[in-house]
Amino acid sequence: MDRKIVQNISVDCVILGFDSVEINVLLVERTLKNPDTDETIFSDLTLAGYHIFEDEDLDSAAARIVKDRTGLENISLKQFYSFGALDRLLHPNDQSWIKASNVIFSDRVVTIGYYSLLPSTNLEIMQNGNIVNWYPINGLKGLAYDHDVILQKAIEHLRHKFWHEPIGFELLPNKFTISQMQKLYEFILGTRFDKRNFRKKISQMSYVVPLKEKQKGVAHKPAQLFMFSKDIYDKTRKERFDFFV
Amino acid sequence: MDRKIVQNISVDCVILGFDSVEINVLLVERTLKNPDTDETIFSDLTLAGYHIFEDEDLDSAAARIVKDRTGLENISLKQFYSFGALDRLLHPNDQSWIKASNVIFSDRVVTIGYYSLLPSTNLEIMQNGNIVNWYPINGLKGLAYDHDVILQKAIEHLRHKFWHEPIGFELLPNKFTISQMQKLYEFILGTRFDKRNFRKKISQMSYVVPLKEKQKGVAHKPAQLFMFSKDIYDKTRKERFDFFV
Repeated sequence: MDRKIVQNISVDCVILGFDSVEINVLLVERTLKNPDTDETIFSDLTLAGYHIFEDEDLDSAAARIVKDRTGLENISLKQFYSFGALDRLLHPNDQSWIKASNVIFSDRVVTIGYYSLLPSTNLEIMQNGNIVNWYPINGLKGLAYDHDVILQKAIEHLRHKFWHEPIGFELLPNKFTISQMQKLYEFILGTRFDKRNFRKKISQMSYVVPLKEKQKGVAHKPAQLFMFSKDIYDKTRKERFDFFV
Repeated sequence: MDRKIVQNISVDCVILGFDSVEINVLLVERTLKNPDTDETIFSDLTLAGYHIFEDEDLDSAAARIVKDRTGLENISLKQFYSFGALDRLLHPNDQSWIKASNVIFSDRVVTIGYYSLLPSTNLEIMQNGNIVNWYPINGLKGLAYDHDVILQKAIEHLRHKFWHEPIGFELLPNKFTISQMQKLYEFILGTRFDKRNFRKKISQMSYVVPLKEKQKGVAHKPAQLFMFSKDIYDKTRKERFDFFV
């Protein structure tokens, strides 16, 4: 047979953080310099990604890559989709970068996407020689490779999960207000909920537990705090049989 | 750096069919023969899988592999998870097969799992020189490579989706009885539903539409037929806000 097989594979990680106002993604600057003159040829932004070593499985590769690129450790990383479009590395900048990097030898690399949801963007980022920063995802474009596509797919994946599962609580602090929760859900789902209806729905969810605690240190009237109980969610699942509504 | 990167990647497809009694998976016989004596060294079963060619993206590779291995065309194939355990190809049979196949050159191959749900096992399978058959998944073990793990993960993935989304209808005929539906859900979810409660829940689902038609050609009293309306499901989604039950 004449057809060659694809022989490159990597992992890319979409690390999302909710700062109580909007959702941000952690990106690494990629700057290609002329090795002779040290002049910048181009500079753009990538997800935290790299190839997989022969001595590590996929989850270990994702954790190692995030640590190497951003310094973040012990964050929950979940596989969500793999990407292998024919043109995902064909932008001239990507081609120049690949040639300079000496790691891969082909125009085709399949990459496995992971995501992480963090309830804060206030984390210590160790730059490890990289320049790493949070960027609001709203309107973000022009990332390296097909990383616009990967980010978009991660958001779609989350939107889908948000409709069906109580995954939003991973992006909220342990103790949260209903208004924080509504803001997050409206942002991800791209929709608006009526404030009273939203509160009413929440009050019907036995697994969103009201606490005897209120917000502290806010200028406005402090709101009540809630927490999510995964135990109660799991226990009541069969009775609910979620999609049977 | 000393560590080598993984340079092999494939696609494996879990094709599931519901025959109104149980769920079956389509498997391909893998038989290694001694090239000199034509004696069988071993024979076992694999999912439909192969490497990705440089001129195809992941979805195209999955469709091409299913067609090449089983003759099935135009079936819906969805990516669900990728697998890269260090030992997934290390069984002696797998090692012998790999050596004989001359396609890959390493102990590490990362594979991207796809699944397909078919409402019947009564399909024309073109064997293309392969021996392909349906096998009930209950108690199935001893597949080639890590295909036991991939099959198990596909079932877990579906179980999770079944709890949260109306995905079961893909495995049911266009027109189905409530008892077929209950059997399928009990099978996938590994649980039992009380018959009356199950019927009551269904009657609350505006998107499971009763038809003015009954079963034909059955020995017992013919049961009423139903169909699933994706339109109604999507339209009522925001009001339901599924996980807010």
